[in-house]
Amino acid sequence: MKEVKIIQYGVGAMGSLMVKAALKRNGLRLVGAIDQGKKGNMDLGEAIGLNRKLGISISGNPQTLLRNIDADLILHATSSFLDEVYPQITMALEGSMNVVSICEELAYPWYRHPELAEKFDRLATENGVTVLGTGVNPGFSLDALVIHCTGLCAEVKRITAKRISDSSLYGPKVLDRRGLGLSVDEWKKRGSEKKITGHIGSHESMGMIGDSLGWDLDETTEMPIEPIIAGVTIDLPYRKVEKGTICGYNQKAYALMGGEKVILFENEGRVYGKGQEHRTEDSVHIEGSPEIKLTIRPGLPGDLTTSSMAVNLIPDVVAPRPGNWWRKRSEGDAFP
Amino acid sequence: MKEVKIIQYGVGAMGSLMVKAALKRNGLRLVGAIDQGKKGNMDLGEAIGLNRKLGISISGNPQTLLRNIDADLILHATSSFLDEVYPQITMALEGSMNVVSICEELAYPWYRHPELAEKFDRLATENGVTVLGTGVNPGFSLDALVIHCTGLCAEVKRITAKRISDSSLYGPKVLDRRGLGLSVDEWKKRGSEKKITGHIGSHESMGMIGDSLGWDLDETTEMPIEPIIAGVTIDLPYRKVEKGTICGYNQKAYALMGGEKVILFENEGRVYGKGQEHRTEDSVHIEGSPEIKLTIRPGLPGDLTTSSMAVNLIPDVVAPRPGNWWRKRSEGDAFP
Repeated sequence: MKEVKIIQYGVGAMGSLMVKAALKRNGLRLVGAIDQGKKGNMDLGEAIGLNRKLGISISGNPQTLLRNIDADLILHATSSFLDEVYPQITMALEGSMNVVSICEELAYPWYRHPELAEKFDRLATENGVTVLGTGVNPGFSLDALVIHCTGLCAEVKRITAKRISDSSLYGPKVLDRRGLGLSVDEWKKRGSEKKITGHIGSHESMGMIGDSLGWDLDETTEMPIEPIIAGVTIDLPYRKVEKGTICGYNQKAYALMGGEKVILFENEGRVYGKGQEHRTEDSVHIEGSPEIKLTIRPGLPGDLTTSSMAVNLIPDVVAPRPGNWWRKRSEGDAFP
Repeated sequence: MKEVKIIQYGVGAMGSLMVKAALKRNGLRLVGAIDQGKKGNMDLGEAIGLNRKLGISISGNPQTLLRNIDADLILHATSSFLDEVYPQITMALEGSMNVVSICEELAYPWYRHPELAEKFDRLATENGVTVLGTGVNPGFSLDALVIHCTGLCAEVKRITAKRISDSSLYGPKVLDRRGLGLSVDEWKKRGSEKKITGHIGSHESMGMIGDSLGWDLDETTEMPIEPIIAGVTIDLPYRKVEKGTICGYNQKAYALMGGEKVILFENEGRVYGKGQEHRTEDSVHIEGSPEIKLTIRPGLPGDLTTSSMAVNLIPDVVAPRPGNWWRKRSEGDAFP
């Protein structure tokens, strides 16, 4: 298997973890990096907090970099929203580069953005490459894991999935979007200006489940975000959250079919102070035949699992293996 | 999507459940059945305990049936052992029929039977069809689920997986093989004659995990089977197990790499009497980064989940979808 040459697109908190994960893998080689924020022109190694240079200067100009560097794959971590990543992904596919992105809305674009999904599909196929949106959620907890488990069922009536997670290690972008450290009044004001979001990707996960089960969903709905107030002051790598300010959110979402709630989600993302009990978990409850109750406790750490998913899926994305189901699994893999 | 025409090969306890599952699915049509035991010449509906005929006479002669009936796929449930199913699978593939089998040793033949796996692979490819061995274990609990979860990890050091299951609904073939209802002495005697087995498929599951992680395993080992003695008399659909006789087994297995145990399995299969607490569960513990602890409780019912897995995977086996990762998931699906 030939070495996979990678450009890291986006060197924020998550992008840095993706670079660190990629550096540990045999068969992967970083050949470039892009960041349109203040990390432009820094050395990639220093930018991600290694104590050494990697000899890769971070470019602030994606057009030029993608044109001048020969790479097989873009590891992509710039935004949760499809309209923001659209031109970036398009540029990569047009340059015949595979894409693995942690953009939440790219995890299953067919449900809410079918024309765009179709366009990406066509563009990737025409250029002989693959594009994948992945991560722990969307990408695992509330969708792929659920779908994997429904394979055990003769009948599925209703799915309840919950992710209660610790957001302590996320970057300032996500913390801002969730309003961490704001007073309740400020949080409400920003919420009314649509500047506060909870989890992104519930619609995508529900669409993925619905299509997998052949369910023709009436609609998917996200309930209003509920704030969680810090009981103690919390020191985070990227933020100090004072006691009495916002330290997280809880949000429910559901999908209707024939007027009945057939998929129920609960997402909670919060940060914890010293000595506070972490009650994180990921759980799936399938009502059907048989009934299945699955729990992962403590909950999956979002930063590490999302970056791992992205890097672990590179061999599959670079070398799709059509045909026989159980062709030897390790064949074509670039690593452990 | 055109209808998938199916022949059920093996109409025992598991085969009967597979037929019942297939009958409930749109897009599947049973066109034939084979059983070389005493169900030959019976109507399939009556043989599986429906109160109606299905108009399909069970044939005792596979050669003739496979030659004379046009089918797309064989649903196969005759034996746990590859040497016994080998001629049956070969015949089906040579007749250009896809195969979904619950033969445990077929779940991942590459590890212990690489030449045979290669031969099946070639035969399937030459005839434009696919062959899959699946079920809850091997096929899910101790392998596919584990592998799915390792996708979340930056590093995997050791895997411990456990399946504690209720065997009450298995057929006489499995109950005999496990020695249920025998006295301890008789159980030991048959054990020394190699007539008693625990779970079949540990080697296959460990091989599948090892190859998926790119681990070069030194060896895989099954420990001696330990008997479980019935504390009460237990009435089963296919057997009466008297108090004081054998009501189940517990068996450990492990894989070594570099002299270290890197995969540890525990399988327990037993039956329960009225009022006895069922302590079934399936669990996965991954030591690595991050550590993952997953529990399914109560444990997955083996009969229902194995037959569901086999039937649910039919669309994928009949219509493999090469290429783009997130081509719309429901595309090409024959059902739900």
